[in-house]
Amino acid sequence: MNFSIIVYIIGYVLKIEGFLMLVPTFVGLYYGETEYLSFLAVAVGIMVLGHLLSFKKPKNQVFYAKEAFVSVPLSWLVVSLFGALPFVISGDIPNFINAFFEMVSGFTTTGSSILTNVEALSHASLFWRSFSHWIGGMGILVFILSVLPLTSGATIHLMRAESPGPQVDKVVPKIKDTSIMLYIIYTAMTALEIILLIIGNIPTFDAVTLSLGTAGTGGFAVRNSGIAEYSPYVQYVIAIFMILFGVNFNVYVLLIRKHLKQALRMEEARWYVIIIILAVALVTVNTKYLFPTLEQAFRHALFQVSSIITTTGFSTYDFSVYYPVFSQTILVLLMFCGACAGSTGGGIKVSRIAVMVKTIKDELSKIIHPRAVKKVRLENKVISSSVVNSIFTFLMGYFAIFIVSLLIVSLDNFDFATNFSATAATINNIGPGISLVGPYENFSQFSDLSKLVFCFNMIAGRLEILPMLVLINPKTWSLSFKFKQKRQTKKSV
Amino acid sequence: MNFSIIVYIIGYVLKIEGFLMLVPTFVGLYYGETEYLSFLAVAVGIMVLGHLLSFKKPKNQVFYAKEAFVSVPLSWLVVSLFGALPFVISGDIPNFINAFFEMVSGFTTTGSSILTNVEALSHASLFWRSFSHWIGGMGILVFILSVLPLTSGATIHLMRAESPGPQVDKVVPKIKDTSIMLYIIYTAMTALEIILLIIGNIPTFDAVTLSLGTAGTGGFAVRNSGIAEYSPYVQYVIAIFMILFGVNFNVYVLLIRKHLKQALRMEEARWYVIIIILAVALVTVNTKYLFPTLEQAFRHALFQVSSIITTTGFSTYDFSVYYPVFSQTILVLLMFCGACAGSTGGGIKVSRIAVMVKTIKDELSKIIHPRAVKKVRLENKVISSSVVNSIFTFLMGYFAIFIVSLLIVSLDNFDFATNFSATAATINNIGPGISLVGPYENFSQFSDLSKLVFCFNMIAGRLEILPMLVLINPKTWSLSFKFKQKRQTKKSV
Repeated sequence: MNFSIIVYIIGYVLKIEGFLMLVPTFVGLYYGETEYLSFLAVAVGIMVLGHLLSFKKPKNQVFYAKEAFVSVPLSWLVVSLFGALPFVISGDIPNFINAFFEMVSGFTTTGSSILTNVEALSHASLFWRSFSHWIGGMGILVFILSVLPLTSGATIHLMRAESPGPQVDKVVPKIKDTSIMLYIIYTAMTALEIILLIIGNIPTFDAVTLSLGTAGTGGFAVRNSGIAEYSPYVQYVIAIFMILFGVNFNVYVLLIRKHLKQALRMEEARWYVIIIILAVALVTVNTKYLFPTLEQAFRHALFQVSSIITTTGFSTYDFSVYYPVFSQTILVLLMFCGACAGSTGGGIKVSRIAVMVKTIKDELSKIIHPRAVKKVRLENKVISSSVVNSIFTFLMGYFAIFIVSLLIVSLDNFDFATNFSATAATINNIGPGISLVGPYENFSQFSDLSKLVFCFNMIAGRLEILPMLVLINPKTWSLSFKFKQKRQTKKSV
Repeated sequence: MNFSIIVYIIGYVLKIEGFLMLVPTFVGLYYGETEYLSFLAVAVGIMVLGHLLSFKKPKNQVFYAKEAFVSVPLSWLVVSLFGALPFVISGDIPNFINAFFEMVSGFTTTGSSILTNVEALSHASLFWRSFSHWIGGMGILVFILSVLPLTSGATIHLMRAESPGPQVDKVVPKIKDTSIMLYIIYTAMTALEIILLIIGNIPTFDAVTLSLGTAGTGGFAVRNSGIAEYSPYVQYVIAIFMILFGVNFNVYVLLIRKHLKQALRMEEARWYVIIIILAVALVTVNTKYLFPTLEQAFRHALFQVSSIITTTGFSTYDFSVYYPVFSQTILVLLMFCGACAGSTGGGIKVSRIAVMVKTIKDELSKIIHPRAVKKVRLENKVISSSVVNSIFTFLMGYFAIFIVSLLIVSLDNFDFATNFSATAATINNIGPGISLVGPYENFSQFSDLSKLVFCFNMIAGRLEILPMLVLINPKTWSLSFKFKQKRQTKKSV
């Protein structure tokens, strides 16, 4: 393992985090809160530390998949650890494990919280929580890739280890250009949402933080009531933007380049829209007896479905208490489905679901027509056996983490629905679950061990399972491996 | 589709079922119950019907995978439909859907029941329930294969469609010999259990029915208290035989042929034993506070773990009420694991779990040593990509059925743990779940629609998913397909 380059990357990551932490510092200053000092102190501290770690570019530039698979999850851990410090120092979240949980939940765009009263937090802390969604939504390293001077091999390895979805599409030939273009789209859409929300007459602070949370498909709110207090207009705007941020960003790239037809033909996006329409229709019909008007049933259904499928986790209604079990089950299933690959959303991803469904259909028709030569296709490309294999591996890792997590968490002796949905909510980066972790409940009741397991789930889910497994695999760190690595490097050079 | 041969096979199946139904008729006669008349009437009726259907051997002997994939699930449906009639006619289970549910549960060796008071049933009916486990355990068609004059191609297609586990191992070169040998082992082990139970001083009727239920890994008991009332000796005997019937029968074939080393080297069996030891140890430690002695904690843990992992479903203790959530979660996870391939147990099967775990390990080490050539092996054979593919398809079909079932059943508005575990208990052919379908509860509370969904799950689970999906796939029955089929047949002939 080339440790020097991993340290170098983490140094860079810290410098950037310190820089980004200046934004909540200014927010604190603007609102005249003393909390800004904690943010400033940590910002300066980690900029200095980061500078020391990345002062000298390492001579050994060897960078393979394994370096990427270690440095990406490590970066996410480090960023969350240091990002939690201002909460602890300022006293907004005095317990370090809670602060760490909150930060992991922020960066991974999960939105699960251990806070019982968010309204007691300073503006600086509230902003930092929502801002972490926005940073994490696009990926911590994707941002760094646009500034970090690395070989193109290293860049693509890093992007593969961090990007959500089965494969990295090179929409624009050069990856740096891609990541800059994606950031422009991302920023523009966030800005548009802020403007539309301000038009809806809500406080600017709420408009900004909620938009940051929507963009990253995060889900931290700034009021204890979530989104329930805001006007129907605001709820519709947020619901629509949640859906938009769950779309594969390639659709927007195609739209910008005026490939309208191609954009509309994106298969994954069409599946995604169809699933949303179906789910909203079913939930509306199933819950209309709860509301005085059909519009309300529809609005809450639209909001809850969009929030869960995009793995955002905002809520306008306590579905875990009031919805009938059928609608709750739909929402639990959508937790696993997740948004499109190449969006800011989490979960298993619509494209994987599409491949799975097509594989069954293909197998069934093979039994009927054994000699027919038909291949499973997605987005007009043949799904190779290596893609099927990678989805299989993904799912197996996913279930392995799910099962171990479920077992450890069940030691806290909460009910099965709580443990199951809490695990689902964290590994899919959603936020709320059902029962004791419903949308108006929180994760503070769990033991420290369970909280750390949830942190693991959140990062594993955000990085699509494998990187976290590589990080904790003892073989990754074994000496024998180091020797072999040296031999291999010599041969390859 | 060659419908004439399918009708011919179903005719044969009915004849055999009529013949087998004479056994409960004699049991009824022996106990001087009038219920024997219902069994006799149905037995004679279906023998006549079966004879009419299989009177003439069809000229068209074409038999491909699709014919097998249709005739196997159809046979299971037909056998359950007619097998339910004596219950209805005798008045032991007056409602037809309930009787059908009970029979599907019997033949698929699930053991879920809609009965609130089994002790009210006649001996004939109780025997028929347990006997259906024994028949279904080895497979309805496997038995027929040893008497039915079919081409060897047809035989292997049928066996593939019915046999539990990822692949059909030809332990003995000729399949008919294999199935006869398997039946000898099966009968001898059942007889041994009956003897050991009678030594344990329980009524002969109980010894016989419980042994039939253990052998098929079914789980229908003949007392309302399940196995709780019997002595610890009886509980240990049943626990050990449950484990034995969950082992891949190839192990016994190897033992009989004195290949001791090979038998002990069976990888799946070793995984299976390790999982059982681990689970029993964890549950014992976790539940020892519930019992006065460690032996009791151990005995109940051993019994519940063996019962669930082998998908039998007997119980000595109401784990869904008294066990802590950690132990309950272990049992729920074991529901999915299931027994060995090539045993009478259901579930996903240990060999599939082994392949899944090995695939992750392989993928992780590939990231660390990208150039190392290592292949995933099981039982010393390289797991080809086609095996991985078939497991992937199996899992996808499994989840598809699971999800649709969960949604439909949730319309009854029971709690999530009930719906989830009832679906798991039926698709994995276990019997009891947790919450409202715990080991001392039953399935009578569900709507007729849900009961039919559970019937579908049970047959789908027993036949390992694909056959039932082929049966309900509209394309299997489409006209266009028939035309194509004719063309293909001409070409191939």
